[in-house]
Amino acid sequence: MTRGVVVDLDGTVVSGDALLDGAADALADVRDAGRDVLFLTNNPTRSPAEYAQRLARLGVDARPEEVLTATSATVDYLREHHLDESVFAIAEESVTDQLRDAGVSLVADARRADTVVVGYDREFAYADMVAALRAFGAGADALVGTDPDITVPTPDGPVPGSGAIIDAVANVVERDPDAVLGKPSDVTARLALDRLDRSPAECVLVGDRLDTDIAMGNRVGMTTVLVRTGVTDDETLAASTVQPDYVRDSLADARDLL
Amino acid sequence: MTRGVVVDLDGTVVSGDALLDGAADALADVRDAGRDVLFLTNNPTRSPAEYAQRLARLGVDARPEEVLTATSATVDYLREHHLDESVFAIAEESVTDQLRDAGVSLVADARRADTVVVGYDREFAYADMVAALRAFGAGADALVGTDPDITVPTPDGPVPGSGAIIDAVANVVERDPDAVLGKPSDVTARLALDRLDRSPAECVLVGDRLDTDIAMGNRVGMTTVLVRTGVTDDETLAASTVQPDYVRDSLADARDLL
Repeated sequence: MTRGVVVDLDGTVVSGDALLDGAADALADVRDAGRDVLFLTNNPTRSPAEYAQRLARLGVDARPEEVLTATSATVDYLREHHLDESVFAIAEESVTDQLRDAGVSLVADARRADTVVVGYDREFAYADMVAALRAFGAGADALVGTDPDITVPTPDGPVPGSGAIIDAVANVVERDPDAVLGKPSDVTARLALDRLDRSPAECVLVGDRLDTDIAMGNRVGMTTVLVRTGVTDDETLAASTVQPDYVRDSLADARDLL
Repeated sequence: MTRGVVVDLDGTVVSGDALLDGAADALADVRDAGRDVLFLTNNPTRSPAEYAQRLARLGVDARPEEVLTATSATVDYLREHHLDESVFAIAEESVTDQLRDAGVSLVADARRADTVVVGYDREFAYADMVAALRAFGAGADALVGTDPDITVPTPDGPVPGSGAIIDAVANVVERDPDAVLGKPSDVTARLALDRLDRSPAECVLVGDRLDTDIAMGNRVGMTTVLVRTGVTDDETLAASTVQPDYVRDSLADARDLL
C-alpha cells in the first residue's frame, strides 16, 4: 500500500517558475489521503527552505524537511561519511552557503582539505582544477559530487551542470568520485526513504526524466510513474531501456496511483 | 638503416631551460652522420620558431621546420581535414596566436564555428564550456584537441594540461574528439614521418615517456629508445606494458643507436 510519494519538482510539479496544471490539487489530495510527500530535485542551488517558500507561494504545501535537494543530500552524505572533516568546495556561492549553514567545515586552502566537494559552479575555472590537484597532492582522500547532471536547460540552450564540473575535476585528479549525490544515486534513494521512513515497496515516485527519476525509483523497487509534462517525449520513452511502471500525462492525471 | 631520428625535447634534450649533458654533441654527431633530425614535443605553447631559437641558444642546431609541436601538428591536421573552415579555439593566447599566424580562420563567436579546437589554457573557465555547447548546438561538426597530456609538471606540482581541458569540453558536449594531436597519436606519428620523408623502419625515436614517446614509436614501427633523463624510473619501466626496444641513461649514451 502506498505510504510515501516521492515527487520530482521541475517538469513534474513546476515548469521553471510556474506551477503545472492541477499539481497543487493532486498533492493536496495525496496529503488528505494520509500519504507523506518528499520533493526530490537535482538542482543544488536553492536550499530546502527556499524551495518550501517557493512552493508555498504557488499554493503547494511543503515543509523544508520535505525537500531533498542535491545539496541537502550531499550534506546528509558528508555527515554520515565525513563528519568533522575539512572540506574544500568547488561550487558557487549558493551551494557553499548551504554547506556552511549546515555546519560543514569549509576550508579556503585546498591543501588543508580531507574531502573535496564539487557542484554547480558558473565561476568554475582552471584555478579550481589546480586547487583540486593540490588538495589530493596534499592528502585529501575523498571526492564528492552534488549531482550528475552534465547539462541543465536554460532559455538560451543547455549550460554545463554540476556533472560536467565534477567530471572535469575527477578527470584531472585521476580518481573516480567516491559519491555523486542527487538522482539517480542509490545514496539519494536511501536518504529519501530514510526521510519518509518507508520501505521502497510503500513508495511511489513521480518524475519526468527516465535516466534520473525513473532509473532511481526502479532500481530501489519503488513504483515509478513517468509524467509527460517535462523532458521525455514518446519517442524517447519508446527508445529507452529504462521503463516506468506507469505513464501519465501529468501529476494531476496520476492521482489514481498516488 | 637509420635515416631519421625523432627526438623528444623536455626530459630528453633539455630539462626545463637547461641542456642535458652531452645532448648537443650527440645531436651534432647524428647530423654529421647524415641523419635527419625531427624534434617532437607535446608542449603546445611555443612555436617551432621559438623552439629553434631556444635550442640554438643552447648550442643545438635546429631549424623551425625540424620542430613539430602539438600546435604545429594541429595546424597540419586542420589544413588537411578542415581547410578554410571557421575555427573557434579554446586555448591560451600563445596557442591561438600560432593558429592565427599559420592562417587558421579563427572566429570569436562560437556559433559561427565549423570546428572547435581545444588546447592548453590557464584561463579556461565555465564560459568556454558554454561556448562549446553553443558551437555544437549551432552546427559545428568537429572537435580537435592539441595534445592529450592531462597534467604537466611545474616546480609547484602538476597543473592541468591540454588533455584535462579537452576532456572537460568533450564531456560537456557529449562527443569524442575527432582527433587529439601530439604524441602518442597516429596522426602526429604520420606527420613526423612526412616531415622526415622516411618510413618508420628507417627511424629511431628517443624519448623519456613510455605512454607518449615510446607508445607512439612502437605502434608505428620505429625503433624506440627510452632515456633515463626524464620522468621514467626503473620501477615505472618494469611495471609498464609499454616497453622500448632499448634503454639508455641519456641521449649522449644512445649515440650507438642513432
